[in-house]
Amino acid sequence: MMEGQTKTASSCKVVSAASVAKELLAEVKQGLLKLDKTALLVGFLANNDPAARKYAEWTDRTCQENGFKFELREVDREELESRILAANTDDGLDGIIVYYPIFGNRQDQYLQQVTDVSKDVEGLSHRYIFKLYHNERFLDEQMTQKSLLPCTPLAVLKILDYLRVYNSILPYGNRLFGRSITVVNRSETVGRPLAALLANDGACVYSVDVTGVQQFTRGTGIKKSKHEVVEKKGWSLADCVPLSDVVISGVPGDSFKIPTKLLREGAVCINFSTEKNFEADVKDKASIYVPAIGKVTIVVLLRNLLRLVQNRQARPPSLVQEPEV
Amino acid sequence: MMEGQTKTASSCKVVSAASVAKELLAEVKQGLLKLDKTALLVGFLANNDPAARKYAEWTDRTCQENGFKFELREVDREELESRILAANTDDGLDGIIVYYPIFGNRQDQYLQQVTDVSKDVEGLSHRYIFKLYHNERFLDEQMTQKSLLPCTPLAVLKILDYLRVYNSILPYGNRLFGRSITVVNRSETVGRPLAALLANDGACVYSVDVTGVQQFTRGTGIKKSKHEVVEKKGWSLADCVPLSDVVISGVPGDSFKIPTKLLREGAVCINFSTEKNFEADVKDKASIYVPAIGKVTIVVLLRNLLRLVQNRQARPPSLVQEPEV
Repeated sequence: MMEGQTKTASSCKVVSAASVAKELLAEVKQGLLKLDKTALLVGFLANNDPAARKYAEWTDRTCQENGFKFELREVDREELESRILAANTDDGLDGIIVYYPIFGNRQDQYLQQVTDVSKDVEGLSHRYIFKLYHNERFLDEQMTQKSLLPCTPLAVLKILDYLRVYNSILPYGNRLFGRSITVVNRSETVGRPLAALLANDGACVYSVDVTGVQQFTRGTGIKKSKHEVVEKKGWSLADCVPLSDVVISGVPGDSFKIPTKLLREGAVCINFSTEKNFEADVKDKASIYVPAIGKVTIVVLLRNLLRLVQNRQARPPSLVQEPEV
Repeated sequence: MMEGQTKTASSCKVVSAASVAKELLAEVKQGLLKLDKTALLVGFLANNDPAARKYAEWTDRTCQENGFKFELREVDREELESRILAANTDDGLDGIIVYYPIFGNRQDQYLQQVTDVSKDVEGLSHRYIFKLYHNERFLDEQMTQKSLLPCTPLAVLKILDYLRVYNSILPYGNRLFGRSITVVNRSETVGRPLAALLANDGACVYSVDVTGVQQFTRGTGIKKSKHEVVEKKGWSLADCVPLSDVVISGVPGDSFKIPTKLLREGAVCINFSTEKNFEADVKDKASIYVPAIGKVTIVVLLRNLLRLVQNRQARPPSLVQEPEV
């Protein structure tokens, strides 16, 4: 039995995020060794949200433990925009993370776009998300600047890879072909990008939110630059969960649960909500259950930071002049 | 008495948007005469919302009547993104308007950023909004490319100018100095940009939404690049409306009304909601009442279209290569 996994009476493997994170960290450390400097991540905290502070402390610890520098800047929310702008042009730092929510409304989306693409460790800039939806891996035509993926969706991909849901015998880019995956949550920062990424890797994805079910696929025929989305009118969880090899859920709040009785026998279940989106008896049906993913997400954040430094080092002179915001 | 105004028994002037629009149209037509081509605006309709269709028909009529071409493209919402991308690089068209809502969630904000800055007649691109908040009038350092303002906030400014709330004896950029203005609505597309614009012109602005009241001012001391915002803890409409020379409201839905009893005697009242946000007896207190602004907004849209064509003609060769999305 592998470390970090426990076998229950029900034969379901419970896989902890820590074990996935460990493997991924080794990869990040390899990259780190090749840098000639210690990368600095700056976090902006501009709220009194205990969860945000906890995440900041956690970022700090993970950075310290793994050879990155971290600096927390606590600012008034009215000062945040000008502080981000100053950080954008400060050569002394490599990445910026903002602990949301700040205003808790669409002003937060405005702020997300204020962080410069070259410093956006969270991968939430429109330009990154656009590249993701269009299945493009580089920002520039010369292919010197890798596009970043947002942390939580990328963490889920890394977990699926660890769990061998990605089938490495298939060619890269098609390793989810044949898989049916339900993703409950279609937010712009997690659920929708995740569904698109899975579809672009060949899966049939059912994306579920309160407004209904959409099916994401890579489409057929000539090579598409973008996944296809079809509304599944009248569908609900009861229609797509029984069809799915993998069920991934991240609905905030503790009232939402995926009924175990809907699960296919042997399904792989991943919870990315801070609350448990699966019922206590999920292990009676699932073959693998991942109860939380936070520790993977934070390693992915470091991986993104490494990417930003690598991009900066690889940037051709013509791109050094950053486009204006 | 000026055309388009009626005098009620209560001595309140009711000013129709039509009379403001007329003056503004004359200005747009002047610009139009200097173009060597007929500008083409393309509208994308991807919903069954009767209000959106009505707005599209209205755009069409206003374009036809004023020397612009308009083409409505009805598309499936799943096709919308690729259709916008094709329009972005189509030299045959000058401006793009998308009739929202499409998905009715944050995916709509993603779509807003897909329209290229050089075609975004609504002025909703992050780059335009960023310039607005930082009180910068040009996109480029050479000052060849004027930044656009979003239509509804700009329509309100044009109305305030028509109503002489902007005092032309004061220097440009300071013409609201001494004015106190309440703006009810702090959305990212209308209320917050409007409050910032008014503050940047010298007004003391009370920005009200369900979460509370914020005061926007230009700030004091050395020239600020950006307005200042201060939370007014515990404040409500009852605190700021009585202090205000001008009250501007755009709360969706018919249940919200500004109590007439809170209004200062002789206040200027402007409603930009499709519903009336003022009580029927507003005219007993107000000196001027503008019950709707839609006709001005649509002329502002044409003005923005004209700007896009002018920007394109003024674009130096170094800027002709648009930055990637």
